[in-house]
Amino acid sequence: MSAYQELERRFRRLSNLRDALGLLRWDSSTMMPVGGAEARAEQMATLEVVCHEILTDPGLADLLAAAEQETDLGRWQAANLREMRRQWRHATAVGADLVQALTKAAAASEMVWRQARPANDFQAVLAPFEKLLALVRESAEAKADRLGCAPYDALIDQWEPAGRTETIDPLFDDLAAFLEDFIGQVVDHQAARPAVLALDGPFPIAAQRRLAEKLATAVGFDFAHGRLDESLHPFSSGVPEDVRITTRYSKDDFTRGLMAVLHETGHALYDRGLPSGWRHQPVGEARGMSLHEGQSLLIEMQACRSPEFLAFAAPLMREAFGRDGPAWQPDNLYRLYTRVEAGLIRVDADEVTYPLHVILRYRLERAMLAGDLALADLPGAWNDGMRELLGLAPPDDRDGCLQDIHWYEGAWGYFPTYTLGAMTAAQLFDAARRAGPEIAPGIARGDFRPLVHWLGEHVHAKGSLLSADELLTEATGRPLDPAVYKAHLKARYLA
Amino acid sequence: MSAYQELERRFRRLSNLRDALGLLRWDSSTMMPVGGAEARAEQMATLEVVCHEILTDPGLADLLAAAEQETDLGRWQAANLREMRRQWRHATAVGADLVQALTKAAAASEMVWRQARPANDFQAVLAPFEKLLALVRESAEAKADRLGCAPYDALIDQWEPAGRTETIDPLFDDLAAFLEDFIGQVVDHQAARPAVLALDGPFPIAAQRRLAEKLATAVGFDFAHGRLDESLHPFSSGVPEDVRITTRYSKDDFTRGLMAVLHETGHALYDRGLPSGWRHQPVGEARGMSLHEGQSLLIEMQACRSPEFLAFAAPLMREAFGRDGPAWQPDNLYRLYTRVEAGLIRVDADEVTYPLHVILRYRLERAMLAGDLALADLPGAWNDGMRELLGLAPPDDRDGCLQDIHWYEGAWGYFPTYTLGAMTAAQLFDAARRAGPEIAPGIARGDFRPLVHWLGEHVHAKGSLLSADELLTEATGRPLDPAVYKAHLKARYLA
Repeated sequence: MSAYQELERRFRRLSNLRDALGLLRWDSSTMMPVGGAEARAEQMATLEVVCHEILTDPGLADLLAAAEQETDLGRWQAANLREMRRQWRHATAVGADLVQALTKAAAASEMVWRQARPANDFQAVLAPFEKLLALVRESAEAKADRLGCAPYDALIDQWEPAGRTETIDPLFDDLAAFLEDFIGQVVDHQAARPAVLALDGPFPIAAQRRLAEKLATAVGFDFAHGRLDESLHPFSSGVPEDVRITTRYSKDDFTRGLMAVLHETGHALYDRGLPSGWRHQPVGEARGMSLHEGQSLLIEMQACRSPEFLAFAAPLMREAFGRDGPAWQPDNLYRLYTRVEAGLIRVDADEVTYPLHVILRYRLERAMLAGDLALADLPGAWNDGMRELLGLAPPDDRDGCLQDIHWYEGAWGYFPTYTLGAMTAAQLFDAARRAGPEIAPGIARGDFRPLVHWLGEHVHAKGSLLSADELLTEATGRPLDPAVYKAHLKARYLA
Repeated sequence: MSAYQELERRFRRLSNLRDALGLLRWDSSTMMPVGGAEARAEQMATLEVVCHEILTDPGLADLLAAAEQETDLGRWQAANLREMRRQWRHATAVGADLVQALTKAAAASEMVWRQARPANDFQAVLAPFEKLLALVRESAEAKADRLGCAPYDALIDQWEPAGRTETIDPLFDDLAAFLEDFIGQVVDHQAARPAVLALDGPFPIAAQRRLAEKLATAVGFDFAHGRLDESLHPFSSGVPEDVRITTRYSKDDFTRGLMAVLHETGHALYDRGLPSGWRHQPVGEARGMSLHEGQSLLIEMQACRSPEFLAFAAPLMREAFGRDGPAWQPDNLYRLYTRVEAGLIRVDADEVTYPLHVILRYRLERAMLAGDLALADLPGAWNDGMRELLGLAPPDDRDGCLQDIHWYEGAWGYFPTYTLGAMTAAQLFDAARRAGPEIAPGIARGDFRPLVHWLGEHVHAKGSLLSADELLTEATGRPLDPAVYKAHLKARYLA
């Protein structure tokens, strides 16, 4: 057995253990009774340690060095070896003690945050939050050393391989400058349209579930290889052969839970379409969070909030709830699903204002990590940023700097991938429709096969063979370009 | 850290990985879409290998030897070390190659059996079944060498530590001889009673589920620490903090699905009551399958099929389905739940004829393992045994020797624990009621706390501190004694 082959064997084991871990995590959020939390945490921590040991085993480093001398590797094998090295770098940059300390500090900070947010008490979380940030910083510095980049870049790199501020800054600055005027134009434009008619509930959960299943199936979700369940926050997880997506239903409003299902279906299609020949190998994994979010936003924002898709969906919605009338016509549904209004809360934001929520967090987390912004000053900086970017003054920290779990659970460097994903989605959808004239008419009749076929070929089946930038360039002719995204926003919101 | 302490650390990891494995198994039977089976099998096999490696690591053998020289161990620690050694013996008796070959042969045989049973085609399964048995035999012989017992005893020992044919033979022979006349007496006795009135369906599944939840809660199931779901065959799994039980509902008959829930609740109570101070250690685990089945049958057969409990449950049943009338009175429900009739199928058998199904399998599997019965002759031997023990001639192998999955999936030596469990249940329930005069009146008003408290103290909280025989002797004053079980049957079925 060659060194490379032995590496494949070890990474296959690692992948299977991570898949098992993924199911435990899914169960925690969907099925587990409250009393099971502590035992589950220990099961997951144990599995994480076993995974970490596989990556940090000294024998693995020797195998990597030996395999890198092997000259008979094909293109995919070489890329696989590169991705193995990448995972090894992240895992070994940080000692086991620091990993454990981080996990513990993150759990402690998150636990306090869960109380502090509803209590609107930023002071309460400050101490554990500072302790956590100190460890995040230590980890970022260690990884930066290993990767040869800045500490904040090293954090981004965990979610978005090769993601760097020097690429992201110009994209985000361009977008922020564009949106500054654009939002006002859109609000004026929408004020001149007919008012959005409300869809009056209640909407029985069982009917919402059936409708969501029907539309997810139309988009391409395969219930022989996946499940749709409920959780506090919608998410997608699982393995390519068994994708698990979730949503949450509200009796008063079906539109958000439904769109969340379509969003998660976009994630699921990516996982389903990963190269099965490279299953359980690093090169067979999804490329990163901007492409993943790109898939979900392509399905949700680009395809399913289009007038064409809503015209297809409208009669199914009417049928699902036994309703009719002007509010249930495609034009009103489209106005409802594209309504723009600046708000305080990121997860409630519309497509146009959402990037500004992200840019605010991107700037702040970078400043906090660098030590340029003291945590005690975060509430003030947050409110200043909201005023500057969105013209809103948060009345309290609950709906201000305490609103997202990310920082308080240690997920730093994640936020930018949301907006990178939105731009990626626009660019891929634009290229897909240009390349496949049957794609747009397909969506209009609820047939996503042409679109999913194109995505499968140009994105999903590539796994991690290419960098995100290379993949996008091969698929669309250029690297990430905010012009396409801005053109999409103009076409949709000012037409 | 002493050798003993290091062992505790390693077994804690092992236990957490097994708990994770248990959740994967539960999900496979309750939630997993069909398309996920292959990926799940690989996840589970990987986890099993990791567990096996922990037990067979040469360092573990050294630690066991060193710890056995340590003189400062308390009673529970010493028992824990003994149980560690026991697990190590089973794991190391059989090489990794044989373990893998067994797993593969079992999967292959089971897969063919799944087709062969509905097709009534014993010949189809014969070849993979013979291959599997050869490996089962090889494993049994290796374990017998290590344990110093006969090969069939070594198989029993996997499920029932220290279970031996020399103890079981006299119990089963006594019982078979007793039942030979007894069944006829019961059938005559029941013929003289009023006929059982049928409960006419349909019974909505949602109402069945609510009723099952209500009665399981009365018995002591804690839904903050467990779930009730549906699966093809009812089972209990999970961890003490999060017990997962299942049942299956039929629209036409609620009585079986409901009693299955109460049966599994008995299993769940055992797991919930294990000594939490010894969680994740071998001595903190349940003692074996006869005690486990003893708990489920105590709740189901002894307590919940009693006239007292059915008098408590009857109004709840009427309310659940909005029914009334003579069929829904306690006396008819009791007649229904204690009806005796010899049948072909073990899982459909009543309390009185069930042991004969087990004794048949016990005798046959022993003869097959020893080579005294060729597999090709199994159908004939089965039918002979059914005629001799139950006076019935199976019309085909589907409802004959193909009916149970156990042999075809490699679970040999398991069957006797069902009837050992039934006898254990009778003996424990008898002792409990003698010791706790408040137990019987509690059951009559749906308050199982006195019973569960007694079981907790005398069975559940003992973990694996004692052997099953020692535990039973401490709890009831004597080792397993068929006289108590026979007295129970006489009191219930001839009164």
